[in-house]
Amino acid sequence: MLPGIGLFGTGPVVKVLVPILRENGFKIEAVWSRTLQDAQELAKDLSIPFFTNKIDDVLLRKDVDLIFVLCSPNLHAQISVKALGIGKHIVCDKPAGLNQCDAFKMVRAGQYYPSLISLINHPFRFLPAFTHMRKAIKDNYLESPITLIDIRIQSGSLFTDSDSFDWKCDDIMGGGALNLIGSHVVDLVTFLTKQRAVRVHGVVRTFTKTTSSINGIRHISAPDFCSFQMELANGVLVTATLNSHTVGSSFQQEVMICSTSGHLVVRGGDLFGRRNRGNEEVLYLDVEDLQCAVPSSSLPKPFIKGICKMVAALREAFLPVKEKAGWVKEPVCSAANFDDGLYVQAVLSAIRQSSNTRQWVKVDIMTKQPDTNALLSAAVRRTAISMS
Amino acid sequence: MLPGIGLFGTGPVVKVLVPILRENGFKIEAVWSRTLQDAQELAKDLSIPFFTNKIDDVLLRKDVDLIFVLCSPNLHAQISVKALGIGKHIVCDKPAGLNQCDAFKMVRAGQYYPSLISLINHPFRFLPAFTHMRKAIKDNYLESPITLIDIRIQSGSLFTDSDSFDWKCDDIMGGGALNLIGSHVVDLVTFLTKQRAVRVHGVVRTFTKTTSSINGIRHISAPDFCSFQMELANGVLVTATLNSHTVGSSFQQEVMICSTSGHLVVRGGDLFGRRNRGNEEVLYLDVEDLQCAVPSSSLPKPFIKGICKMVAALREAFLPVKEKAGWVKEPVCSAANFDDGLYVQAVLSAIRQSSNTRQWVKVDIMTKQPDTNALLSAAVRRTAISMS
Repeated sequence: MLPGIGLFGTGPVVKVLVPILRENGFKIEAVWSRTLQDAQELAKDLSIPFFTNKIDDVLLRKDVDLIFVLCSPNLHAQISVKALGIGKHIVCDKPAGLNQCDAFKMVRAGQYYPSLISLINHPFRFLPAFTHMRKAIKDNYLESPITLIDIRIQSGSLFTDSDSFDWKCDDIMGGGALNLIGSHVVDLVTFLTKQRAVRVHGVVRTFTKTTSSINGIRHISAPDFCSFQMELANGVLVTATLNSHTVGSSFQQEVMICSTSGHLVVRGGDLFGRRNRGNEEVLYLDVEDLQCAVPSSSLPKPFIKGICKMVAALREAFLPVKEKAGWVKEPVCSAANFDDGLYVQAVLSAIRQSSNTRQWVKVDIMTKQPDTNALLSAAVRRTAISMS
Repeated sequence: MLPGIGLFGTGPVVKVLVPILRENGFKIEAVWSRTLQDAQELAKDLSIPFFTNKIDDVLLRKDVDLIFVLCSPNLHAQISVKALGIGKHIVCDKPAGLNQCDAFKMVRAGQYYPSLISLINHPFRFLPAFTHMRKAIKDNYLESPITLIDIRIQSGSLFTDSDSFDWKCDDIMGGGALNLIGSHVVDLVTFLTKQRAVRVHGVVRTFTKTTSSINGIRHISAPDFCSFQMELANGVLVTATLNSHTVGSSFQQEVMICSTSGHLVVRGGDLFGRRNRGNEEVLYLDVEDLQCAVPSSSLPKPFIKGICKMVAALREAFLPVKEKAGWVKEPVCSAANFDDGLYVQAVLSAIRQSSNTRQWVKVDIMTKQPDTNALLSAAVRRTAISMS
């Protein structure tokens, strides 16, 4: 039985997601936005029966059992933790929350309610080119161990001329190429290789600080370029260049995995391979069209295709079980969970730190909640000493 | 009047250069190689009248006035400095010598004989796509200052299965992707922007340590991969990924120069541009065929085309002057000189250091010969103290 859907957010992902959910038989029951006007507008455009600007009004609805958290990252943890507490399944947008603290709270909540689905929205894990690439690695297509992963993503500006200033323009609020594109890259590497980064270096830059519509007191602080290197636990080197600084370019991605005897490479949505010093061969061509009409979107096509596959997997997880909101694990077992989300936040944070300190930084995954009381009393003690 | 040519070396560049020189009216008078057998073989193959394994036998020939130093880097400085002293023009392969010390000696010799041509072989400076790119930058095509330069070069392995161990396999001896490809990238950025790097970061790796023919006691230490970032004096960020680790790939290059309002990009030998949020337009298409038959070579085609143009420029420099080996400056004024060679060595050295220390490293260009006597006496003093 498919669960009813509650949506948080009104951005481009929501507009793409709604027709895909419906195509797969899901019913959208409610939508939330920070302003009632935005919520109303979206509800009207997409024929959603209920809209609100109160979080609880969605979470407490009896007809809603699966929540998509696609609003600004500062609300991810709050909504996700509360929703799990009320017994709702969660798919939360990447990167989980604003920082490791947020992601850590989400991990704890997810662990507390293991009977509920708690996923991070990383659609590349469902894109056929990458699932085939992962299988080829597992089947030892490369014949020798992976040595190098070289990733390059070019996209047009993350802002259009009609965009007004919002969280996407702000680095701290979770905007920019590192959070929005880099998070997928960091997650993808682990998905493909089952390895995590132990050490990173990065250069993160904001070249475009104003647009024709964002040129007042507030400037864009979200980076439009980053180049980073990661050393995985098994010694493999990853290098990634993410450029959304090039005006008007279309989305291009190349993910190349090398060994000493061959390579696998995803270009766009297609997979190629070469081994044994032979020629590069086609391993998977993405000729499949989108099965449902999605609005023309600023989102890259491989990303939308990934969302389609992810929603289809959710359908497979819920459909076979008769009880309300019951599910089976297998169809979504390769999706990113909250623990993956915490890891991604740790890597992004290390890359940012490296860009500031001009050094390689060890990836440090949070294992316990920072004790704010202890920090506070230490500060009070220091003040008392300095005043005495 | 065109000068007679003396060649040092027998590698692929020599085999490509000889027919190009002849096409332009130059006469090849002599060739040197480390072994008499190699010299004899090449002289026979390419119909060169004189061969030897003694350096002076080429340098002292009256019919030789222009020397191409294309042998292993450990001999660059020795041959170049001596040749200038004897009054011969020099074109020396990149990167000049093994290190900054070598390059510095060459700079000093070049300064001492300003009436002689002393150039570094950086053919990309003569490739039409890059000369047009440079002109477009100068003519303010981008309309706003450069923010980012993003360079990606992929090539097949630098070694073929038939190669035996030689200096190209050895990092210290001047082999590998950083020295052989990186040197061109570092030089090209300065050629295009007139800016030098002040600080660099790099990751330099040797993934392929053996081939089917190099698998004995000696392994390949020359890197087949490097990714580096440079900060130019005017704040522009350069990021470069050079990958010769991918088995059997063909040569691909993309050099993209971005501003906040547009970009210029060379792909292969073609130049494209975009500005004012318009579409990408073709600025130069490299449809010209090579004007002379060169042997099928492992060298990339844009590189060979660059050599053609450089040799044509040398012809223009020598031809108008009647006196033996007299020349005019203008046709070769944009070529790389020994001073450029010293700068490139300084950057390569900083990138190597960064890869070892995992930190950004300041580019430090040598301004005086390290005083080996002072270093030696300091060492003796330290030994004396520790023994007393």
